[in-house]
Amino acid sequence: MMDSSLKSLISSIEPPNAEARIQAQTRLDSLTKPPGSLGQLEDIAVQVVAITGNVSPSLPNPIVFTLAADHGVTAEGVSAYPQPVTAQMVKNFVQGGAGVNVLARHAGASVCVVDMGVAEDLKALSGLVDHKIALGTKNFAKEHAMTHDQALQSIQTGINLVKTACAEGKNVIAVGEMGIGNTTASAAITSVLTGKSVAEVTGRGTGVDDKRFKHKISVIEQALSLHSPSPSNAFDVLVKVGGFEIGGLVGIILGGAACKVPVILDGFITGASALIAVALQPQCREYLIASHVSQEPGHRMVLEHLQLDPLLDLRMRLGEGTGACLAITLIQAAVKIYSGMATFGEAKVDGAVSQTSGSPVGS
Amino acid sequence: MMDSSLKSLISSIEPPNAEARIQAQTRLDSLTKPPGSLGQLEDIAVQVVAITGNVSPSLPNPIVFTLAADHGVTAEGVSAYPQPVTAQMVKNFVQGGAGVNVLARHAGASVCVVDMGVAEDLKALSGLVDHKIALGTKNFAKEHAMTHDQALQSIQTGINLVKTACAEGKNVIAVGEMGIGNTTASAAITSVLTGKSVAEVTGRGTGVDDKRFKHKISVIEQALSLHSPSPSNAFDVLVKVGGFEIGGLVGIILGGAACKVPVILDGFITGASALIAVALQPQCREYLIASHVSQEPGHRMVLEHLQLDPLLDLRMRLGEGTGACLAITLIQAAVKIYSGMATFGEAKVDGAVSQTSGSPVGS
Repeated sequence: MMDSSLKSLISSIEPPNAEARIQAQTRLDSLTKPPGSLGQLEDIAVQVVAITGNVSPSLPNPIVFTLAADHGVTAEGVSAYPQPVTAQMVKNFVQGGAGVNVLARHAGASVCVVDMGVAEDLKALSGLVDHKIALGTKNFAKEHAMTHDQALQSIQTGINLVKTACAEGKNVIAVGEMGIGNTTASAAITSVLTGKSVAEVTGRGTGVDDKRFKHKISVIEQALSLHSPSPSNAFDVLVKVGGFEIGGLVGIILGGAACKVPVILDGFITGASALIAVALQPQCREYLIASHVSQEPGHRMVLEHLQLDPLLDLRMRLGEGTGACLAITLIQAAVKIYSGMATFGEAKVDGAVSQTSGSPVGS
Repeated sequence: MMDSSLKSLISSIEPPNAEARIQAQTRLDSLTKPPGSLGQLEDIAVQVVAITGNVSPSLPNPIVFTLAADHGVTAEGVSAYPQPVTAQMVKNFVQGGAGVNVLARHAGASVCVVDMGVAEDLKALSGLVDHKIALGTKNFAKEHAMTHDQALQSIQTGINLVKTACAEGKNVIAVGEMGIGNTTASAAITSVLTGKSVAEVTGRGTGVDDKRFKHKISVIEQALSLHSPSPSNAFDVLVKVGGFEIGGLVGIILGGAACKVPVILDGFITGASALIAVALQPQCREYLIASHVSQEPGHRMVLEHLQLDPLLDLRMRLGEGTGACLAITLIQAAVKIYSGMATFGEAKVDGAVSQTSGSPVGS
């Protein structure tokens, strides 16, 4: 199925550093606060230490990858917005006017906008990274979304993007996407890889009405019936019902784990991509941080399947990387708590009293 | 009950600007995203516009008030930490080593640490704002926590603090606290003002064991039975079972609403203070933003009673203002979304298609 260089990268991914994890927990418990009282911030700090293997981490150089592509399945009328909006939004991204741009600036992150397969010639667009595989996927209601080689190319592109970014000093990777129709592809992927029914994992995307919503479910059900993608072969699922931006995101996740950097997921589409990446290499999961849970019902099921606990639940459903950007500042805060707080000893603060004897214990 | 200057301030508080709220919603719906797709961020942006009455708001100057005081009820053995920890942590705050310091620096906020009634002479401590009312409250298991005049003084101190900060250009107020024993006072207040039983609203604070936890509930139940604070008289509740930092927080909330600035709540103690402030002036509620819901069970009930939807749920229970600091960056992000994103017209992006005719509508 996969070529040897991809197999080799996948097999190079190691679990996070267990010894560093223990050191991080010991330091957290020595800080001037009741043990565990910073909750999930403490979990994130420990995870970052374990991922990076660095017991004095800092994450000053975040980058957001926003991958864009079109989807042949939009021909079936599954979205509330017309297909040209993908290209129009890509222009908005490179001009800095979209939600992801505003939130990335707020988080001090750079944005890398990548054309993975938008259905319009965008070569003249300055600021766009061109890795176009084709002018959109094929309509998976009728045929496979992409060829085997295109799927490989999309994953390899993501791997190369993240390797280059890490070589340039980026130390935390946030992911996002844009593609009219991509909640349809993501629902198909999620149904196959979680075993949930299509009706359970399908949502209204950008906002379809009741009639289109029923139609969207029926289009996905028929496509899965036509192609029978195998739940035990995530690469096959990508080929049959995936998207070029989704393949790219799979590559970024695999590459991020190989480079030992935290990868911050965004919403449903990045979650569906993570399902594929984790199916290809289960070790990936521990490199992932779920920024938020979106309003798309399938996203909650993705996170449950991956056993990821999202940092935010703000009823967002925009994608692009907007949720991931919000999480960057929370993750940086967690790391600063770990590295910047005084210990009980340094601050001369008493520990908890022994609740049997009443005298102070610890320090 | 209350003196005339406090009554006058309370009656000066107006509801947020309804016209500005409508203008803000109209602008949000013109931005390049499906309507409502940024969820709670959009709600916060609208709220900030309505609070400030400014349709082009920005919140560059946040301040965190961390108010500290001791509680006579600690003599009953209701906390896992000894009373001197309040003063020790105040020293940690002014030295910059506590959780709130780290998270305030991360959010670009200044920290104002106020001695409202710590049970130790801290006059020599540089960097501490001295408004000490007494060396801790009285033990409310035996007598009223404070006198009528002390309660008034605590509220007036909070009002003065926030008025001075606003005059100096602070435009968003975060609140926090430190006081061994103050979850006990907060549970007592919450039980009276929400009508929930003591057992429902009491938690383990900094981490008491089962035996002390049962004792803590029993101490509060007996105190409420002894003093019978009136649910229809929040000032009376503050006098009988409150704390000096709690009175100060009530004043900051009232003063923040009077100054038309958003007030970001932290955990259970700031929530109990908000119950009192909102009971004194219901208009206050709309000036409040709930940063997070803490692990203390009573906090969830406070937020339900106040109908506030917290931004974060990270299993935190430290207090100090740590949750409020995390929310500052989210609130600033919400305001930047509102002011910094391109509109559909500016970015030349198509709106949603008409789902009956299939042709584009809006722009």
